[in-house]
Amino acid sequence: MTGPDTITPRARLPMQGVACGSVFSSLVAGEVAFAGSGPGDPDLLTLKVARALLQADVILFDRLVSAEIMALAGPQAQLEDVGKEGFGPQVSQEEICVRMVAHARAGKKVLRLKSGDPTVYGRLDEELTACEAAGVAYQILPGITAASAAVASIGQSLTQRGRNASVRFLTGHDMKGFADHDWAALARPGEVAAIYMGKKSARFVQGRLIMHGADRATPMTIVENASRANQRVIETTLERLPTDLAAAELTGPALTFLGLAPRASAQALTNLKLELA
Amino acid sequence: MTGPDTITPRARLPMQGVACGSVFSSLVAGEVAFAGSGPGDPDLLTLKVARALLQADVILFDRLVSAEIMALAGPQAQLEDVGKEGFGPQVSQEEICVRMVAHARAGKKVLRLKSGDPTVYGRLDEELTACEAAGVAYQILPGITAASAAVASIGQSLTQRGRNASVRFLTGHDMKGFADHDWAALARPGEVAAIYMGKKSARFVQGRLIMHGADRATPMTIVENASRANQRVIETTLERLPTDLAAAELTGPALTFLGLAPRASAQALTNLKLELA
Repeated sequence: MTGPDTITPRARLPMQGVACGSVFSSLVAGEVAFAGSGPGDPDLLTLKVARALLQADVILFDRLVSAEIMALAGPQAQLEDVGKEGFGPQVSQEEICVRMVAHARAGKKVLRLKSGDPTVYGRLDEELTACEAAGVAYQILPGITAASAAVASIGQSLTQRGRNASVRFLTGHDMKGFADHDWAALARPGEVAAIYMGKKSARFVQGRLIMHGADRATPMTIVENASRANQRVIETTLERLPTDLAAAELTGPALTFLGLAPRASAQALTNLKLELA
Repeated sequence: MTGPDTITPRARLPMQGVACGSVFSSLVAGEVAFAGSGPGDPDLLTLKVARALLQADVILFDRLVSAEIMALAGPQAQLEDVGKEGFGPQVSQEEICVRMVAHARAGKKVLRLKSGDPTVYGRLDEELTACEAAGVAYQILPGITAASAAVASIGQSLTQRGRNASVRFLTGHDMKGFADHDWAALARPGEVAAIYMGKKSARFVQGRLIMHGADRATPMTIVENASRANQRVIETTLERLPTDLAAAELTGPALTFLGLAPRASAQALTNLKLELA
């Protein structure tokens, strides 16, 4: 295990007075830590992942991990950009696994850093399997997923008493997985979903939902670059989604909420309904 | 805005070298920050929330916020336990709102600390409305939700290519919200859901899923006290869920996964199927 001696002061200090077994053991030599960096604001790193950045000998990081976050890497860290582009990996998945395992076998503290939470659309399992096949131990360090940061930024909750007792995370990329009764459920009033990587599939999603009876006025909100300095919020409706999305010319990662408007307007809408009632 | 001068060294140090506007502005006098503490391990606090704990003049915290986390509060902080019990609040929701607003109006830096992520079953909206009604500004600081920490601890992902392209968070408490076709969708092979507060509703959930054709052998995993030193993982199936849950005599908060087994056994099962095929 990594001992306190190997922790730099700036990593140890914030945890003073905390009695917690995991505090000084973020990384272990010869092992891999799969970690989530959150959506971009370094302030959304967990203490554990911030310390892992300081401790790592090698960091294999994805394209969406922000520069501000990589700036927190320790001076000793070897940084390897294995960033995936929209149309498949820049460095192949196989190559990522080969490098990761080789570094671990060489006794390095390996940090495999993914944006958001590695368990949400993080393609984690292929890499865990590679570690298991090579007999390399690993741990998984959760991160703040984009939906959590994005919904907070529009003053909304993912769940709300009397509105939605469940929330769904979908992906816009791989729509094969959805059966029609899923769309029927999503088309119901009050449903809330966070659609990841939904830029290309906006028209498809709109079509399916309307086909299953969704109200064309259903609020939708697109949050681009959630938690970053260049975050943009686009408020729209199911009817206007593809048009407004195209007009916005998004360049960064975007999360689309079904059934949520930014709170101010949600409030205004509620008041309007109350007045009309 | 809060300036660097008000930051204690142990809060400033971990952020050295980070260019990020939000770094030194976790809390503002006269405002309320609604923050998530994560599921219990202080190491899962975000840097922003860890600093908010150090800066706050008043901290209104829920019952499930761990003692290790409250130990990170600054020496000046006035701590108010407004913990909710399973059967409704210890301190009424109205009283919480009254206190929160009064402290903010008195010019305090108010931290409203909830376990997990305040936007996931955090009953956030009533408190936001109270702030708006009183003209008190607020911000929302996301936290790691229990599902994220729990799924990482069993070596699984919430989503997986070829298995589930969507994941749902449900609550076991308020089941009125579910229509039958939701259960039909959840009963399908490969569906994954994280059931919050599902201890009391286990038999109800089991009944609905089986009624809609779910395989009785569907893997289910209960994670009690996710991320804490006393975390327990109970591996079961849809068939055995209520029995195994009762036998476990859980005392802490529990998250139940539908469709997920801890990775080791998931792997063993896959290998078995491959051998049989």
